[in-house]
Amino acid sequence: MKIAVINPNTTQAMTGMIGAAARRAAGPGTRILIDQSPAGPAAIEGPFDGALCVPGLLQAIRKAEQDGAAAHVIACFDDTGLDAARAMSARPVIGLGEAALHMASLLAQRFCVVTTLSRSVPTLRANILRYGFDRRCPQVLASDIPVLDLHRAGSGAKERIAELIGTGLRNGAEAAVLGCAGMADLANELTRELGVPVVDGVDAAVRLAEALAASGHRPSKIGGWALPSRIDELPPVAG
Amino acid sequence: MKIAVINPNTTQAMTGMIGAAARRAAGPGTRILIDQSPAGPAAIEGPFDGALCVPGLLQAIRKAEQDGAAAHVIACFDDTGLDAARAMSARPVIGLGEAALHMASLLAQRFCVVTTLSRSVPTLRANILRYGFDRRCPQVLASDIPVLDLHRAGSGAKERIAELIGTGLRNGAEAAVLGCAGMADLANELTRELGVPVVDGVDAAVRLAEALAASGHRPSKIGGWALPSRIDELPPVAG
Amino acid sequence: MKIAVINPNTTQAMTGMIGAAARRAAGPGTRILIDQSPAGPAAIEGPFDGALCVPGLLQAIRKAEQDGAAAHVIACFDDTGLDAARAMSARPVIGLGEAALHMASLLAQRFCVVTTLSRSVPTLRANILRYGFDRRCPQVLASDIPVLDLHRAGSGAKERIAELIGTGLRNGAEAAVLGCAGMADLANELTRELGVPVVDGVDAAVRLAEALAASGHRPSKIGGWALPSRIDELPPVAG
Amino acid sequence: MKIAVINPNTTQAMTGMIGAAARRAAGPGTRILIDQSPAGPAAIEGPFDGALCVPGLLQAIRKAEQDGAAAHVIACFDDTGLDAARAMSARPVIGLGEAALHMASLLAQRFCVVTTLSRSVPTLRANILRYGFDRRCPQVLASDIPVLDLHRAGSGAKERIAELIGTGLRNGAEAAVLGCAGMADLANELTRELGVPVVDGVDAAVRLAEALAASGHRPSKIGGWALPSRIDELPPVAG
Amino acid sequence: MKIAVINPNTTQAMTGMIGAAARRAAGPGTRILIDQSPAGPAAIEGPFDGALCVPGLLQAIRKAEQDGAAAHVIACFDDTGLDAARAMSARPVIGLGEAALHMASLLAQRFCVVTTLSRSVPTLRANILRYGFDRRCPQVLASDIPVLDLHRAGSGAKERIAELIGTGLRNGAEAAVLGCAGMADLANELTRELGVPVVDGVDAAVRLAEALAASGHRPSKIGGWALPSRIDELPPVAG
Amino acid sequence: MKIAVINPNTTQAMTGMIGAAARRAAGPGTRILIDQSPAGPAAIEGPFDGALCVPGLLQAIRKAEQDGAAAHVIACFDDTGLDAARAMSARPVIGLGEAALHMASLLAQRFCVVTTLSRSVPTLRANILRYGFDRRCPQVLASDIPVLDLHRAGSGAKERIAELIGTGLRNGAEAAVLGCAGMADLANELTRELGVPVVDGVDAAVRLAEALAASGHRPSKIGGWALPSRIDELPPVAG
Repeated sequence: MKIAVINPNTTQAMTGMIGAAARRAAGPGTRILIDQSPAGPAAIEGPFDGALCVPGLLQAIRKAEQDGAAAHVIACFDDTGLDAARAMSARPVIGLGEAALHMASLLAQRFCVVTTLSRSVPTLRANILRYGFDRRCPQVLASDIPVLDLHRAGSGAKERIAELIGTGLRNGAEAAVLGCAGMADLANELTRELGVPVVDGVDAAVRLAEALAASGHRPSKIGGWALPSRIDELPPVAG
Repeated sequence: MKIAVINPNTTQAMTGMIGAAARRAAGPGTRILIDQSPAGPAAIEGPFDGALCVPGLLQAIRKAEQDGAAAHVIACFDDTGLDAARAMSARPVIGLGEAALHMASLLAQRFCVVTTLSRSVPTLRANILRYGFDRRCPQVLASDIPVLDLHRAGSGAKERIAELIGTGLRNGAEAAVLGCAGMADLANELTRELGVPVVDGVDAAVRLAEALAASGHRPSKIGGWALPSRIDELPPVAG
Repeated sequence: MKIAVINPNTTQAMTGMIGAAARRAAGPGTRILIDQSPAGPAAIEGPFDGALCVPGLLQAIRKAEQDGAAAHVIACFDDTGLDAARAMSARPVIGLGEAALHMASLLAQRFCVVTTLSRSVPTLRANILRYGFDRRCPQVLASDIPVLDLHRAGSGAKERIAELIGTGLRNGAEAAVLGCAGMADLANELTRELGVPVVDGVDAAVRLAEALAASGHRPSKIGGWALPSRIDELPPVAG
Repeated sequence: MKIAVINPNTTQAMTGMIGAAARRAAGPGTRILIDQSPAGPAAIEGPFDGALCVPGLLQAIRKAEQDGAAAHVIACFDDTGLDAARAMSARPVIGLGEAALHMASLLAQRFCVVTTLSRSVPTLRANILRYGFDRRCPQVLASDIPVLDLHRAGSGAKERIAELIGTGLRNGAEAAVLGCAGMADLANELTRELGVPVVDGVDAAVRLAEALAASGHRPSKIGGWALPSRIDELPPVAG
Repeated sequence: MKIAVINPNTTQAMTGMIGAAARRAAGPGTRILIDQSPAGPAAIEGPFDGALCVPGLLQAIRKAEQDGAAAHVIACFDDTGLDAARAMSARPVIGLGEAALHMASLLAQRFCVVTTLSRSVPTLRANILRYGFDRRCPQVLASDIPVLDLHRAGSGAKERIAELIGTGLRNGAEAAVLGCAGMADLANELTRELGVPVVDGVDAAVRLAEALAASGHRPSKIGGWALPSRIDELPPVAG
Repeated sequence: MKIAVINPNTTQAMTGMIGAAARRAAGPGTRILIDQSPAGPAAIEGPFDGALCVPGLLQAIRKAEQDGAAAHVIACFDDTGLDAARAMSARPVIGLGEAALHMASLLAQRFCVVTTLSRSVPTLRANILRYGFDRRCPQVLASDIPVLDLHRAGSGAKERIAELIGTGLRNGAEAAVLGCAGMADLANELTRELGVPVVDGVDAAVRLAEALAASGHRPSKIGGWALPSRIDELPPVAG
């Protein structure tokens, strides 16, 4: 089974890191198709960046669908372009954010999200509300470390994230969700150190995408995800 | 005062109709700058169309800002691209949908939305929830008349919309909101015929944009609408 | 266009201050009819005071309607008597509190209210819930400065309010609403000093009343605001 | 123990009927002090009537308190003036509406309210939301029989109410609440005929008032029900 | 009238203490039938203990029903087995937790719960949400004193509980609920010392059980509490 | 990997059917350990049956844990005993109901549940609320076909379920969840016939259990699922 994992931003190092995390999560029969938006912002920090990356993301998803992907993962915790992608695709599409939230809700009754920038918090809150997790995940905490600095040596990212998870736990959370695809490789270590589930969205999304694809279910096409009548508006990807 | 009214789709007839409605609503000291997306779908029917029109919409808003607009109206009831536009702009930006919902909530305790296609309903429901109107506006009814057919002779659009408003009233609504920019010119007539407030978003948005601009308030820049650091990603509009 | 602004309490100094703020907000074609309850409490501090001022408030609104007011503003942040006034009047009636909350929700995704006394907080929370702003405005903070002390020299009112807004911002608010008509003249200064929108209800209500009146809309009469059958119960105002 | 039951309207026949129902509900050691507003509307049909009856209601409650009432019942299903009365009184005050809703929620997981006029529905919905019963009591059904016609021979009131309860049950209710003090004497008969709990507010309020008074608890005075500083604004009742 | 009060755990000292509290609350014509689960855990600290005590609890309730109880109180703040007991019984059944929450909501607009262990908090939160008190009771605070240590000399239980109530009050509560049957004898003292209502569930439940029984109402049998078809699955209690 | 699937009731035919469905869902490397409660009701129809089956269910889960299960599925749509099982177990435990709801929420924005008996509806609604799916799954429809009749020839079960799903779709659902383990073998056929996702809980739960087990995550032990101190209260299973 092929699972497409699309980084909607255009930073290759991040795409590589996400691909590695996706491959760690994938089952033995799964092949990960890793890709990124062909054009657009280098990171998604807030709704402006998010909006600009969607056309490229949709092109990459269409290409993956033509390459035989059984399901798609949008590898940004904001779940950028999720509705548009689901409308366009006949296959399951899953966002990193929703995947992590669903997984966490099977591991704890209350949990928190630790993300990068304060300006991303309202987008995440809006998603959490819409999915139905607002009572279970009332805290979204920002580390104020920019996405592309997460892996810079000496950024202190892991320590700062651990500290914020601690704040979340003291305020009623029983588990934590890492609110940025760029934090994927910290989850296992933080889970061990903190003694509570620390859920990474890449891991969660790949596993849920496999489960959905194997189940044979396709997303409903009678509501907001009906096949667009203007699907040819999307320009083809070169190459 | 200049108020920009941007149709995010690319159908000129619709832009013209919206412009006429906007000018009817504008106060004596207001000049309406009417524009449309420079490129993109001919109508926004669902989230795929919506996503593809945002880059063009943002370009048109930037252009209007350079032309001195004191506030911007996004003239699609889906409030397409609203967060991205607000992040980009230093001026108030208001969506047609939110404007109509706010106005209706000053005219009735419960109200309904009558929109075009069923596939738009989930987007509108998500907006209504996020804004906080879910308890006050529990019904979103679809006429299943495509946007571009609303003004086709013999489409029966007005009768169908009146019938759906009647359904809404029988189920507890006390007023109705027209859920598509293309319905703007039906509001007055339906208000008279049905004896309840029937709110059009173009009218509501222009009036609220004037009020916001005159108040001197600017949107908060400390949350999700902080000025994007990648604002130069947006290509300039030719001409 | 005449807009009536009624102070439901009987303190003339406060009526004067509200009138000045209303006139600053009014557009060029608007004439403000400022009035106060003919009898009743000197300030509204809690639901007992609120209840006692309603009959006088309704008399003043009726008088303004006879004087040709196109819309009415109830100039108390508790929105005292709002439903009764809307039932009685054929014209739009708007409360200071709801006006400020609507305006703030177009300027920020989350905001807080800073009011005078702790005993007013439950009334404001109940209004916020009923209008639908409970998720967007989860914080109502009390300065514990009595209404009539707000303008006393040396009361430290502005500093205390600024401090509470700071608390709100640290806890997720992106803007603030001044929760008492008596704070109207602090809004501009606080907006400048704090760098976030600080919304005053007098300003918001006058602008929304103008917008509603100009739109031609009347409040729905098929629900709770249907014309009372016992409207003659209200004694006429002398003079 | 003396329990005051105050009819906030001025229709003596209704006061008499409420008094009889209250005495049927009262325990052996309870004496019912029945009274009505000294002045005001003959019935409470909507928020305008409600507002006008509050000053008289408060006077009657004060008088009952001076006469030694251990707790007070506001005998209108709208819970008119409840917050003002609680602020004024050192004793438990309970509204007919809240009492019936609490009692019903111990007898069924979902229930409906059947009231008199459509114009009362928004007030009841607002109360239900504020108290927290919105998920448990999503249906408020209006019989459109005026309050004072409930006991008119040939009004068909009981049959119409039974029919509406049937509608409620078919839509998920498991019990019903009679949404008007004037329906008190129908509860037992409807309970027997329909085979589900049909709760009357007079009965519920008297029993809860006895329970509260006997418990020795007094309403909290540190929030919105703090003793008003302007308590002398309320004119004394003659006689 | 006989009111059964069943301690679902098997600690006799606690049953005795609950019985004494119940008798203090009971009216002159009430006889308290006090009993405990015939088998099961010594305390209910979390959902595992709770599940294991339900069969014994149901047996004790059946026995009390055969002994003529007019209503039943489940004397654990978790409301353990409440739905099962209500389905089995033709008589009103009331849980300690729900009783205290209903009573508190007549005494304060916002209140908090102070319970024993952190592990009980999610169960209480789930109950509060289901009953509808989530907005009125947003704080559930754990003292981390085990149930059976509450009455141990030198446990400092009362002081710790008073401290947590203080925390609740500073965060918006206006009253407190004691979240464990074992705290019953602290309520009066804490009410006096803290000057706000401190509600004990044994007291509240006995009074509400009397009120329900006297009203003649039976729980609805058309929903989830319909008489089980497998009622003979419950083994009889010896003796 | 071993996944335990425990039928909490004691009907062997149903256990067999569930086991077959579980094996169809299981991945190539998964071995299903199918078991049922050693004692208790033959079906779970309402909360009384549910409560009586929990001790046996917990014994069966403990036995499966000793046999090396990497995760457990509670094979009743009511999610009977889920919190108790999670507290007892160091491994992921998943309920049929929650699994289906999570899966459906990745396939549709709104969905409905079709279950067996009306008396089960309140339990399912309570679960849906607690998990956070109340806005996404507002309809729970009962077929009133008893669990053990679902597979009786001529019961018309499939047709009745299809009809109820149709009702759900007409009222806004975009997908359906089969609300009983006994309906597992109808899901594929109904999905094909109705053209929308029809989700079966056995399939969903096995796939999510595999995903959780493979992820290495364990349920949080710092909240309500902390290891019980009285874990030895559970009697061992014979054999």
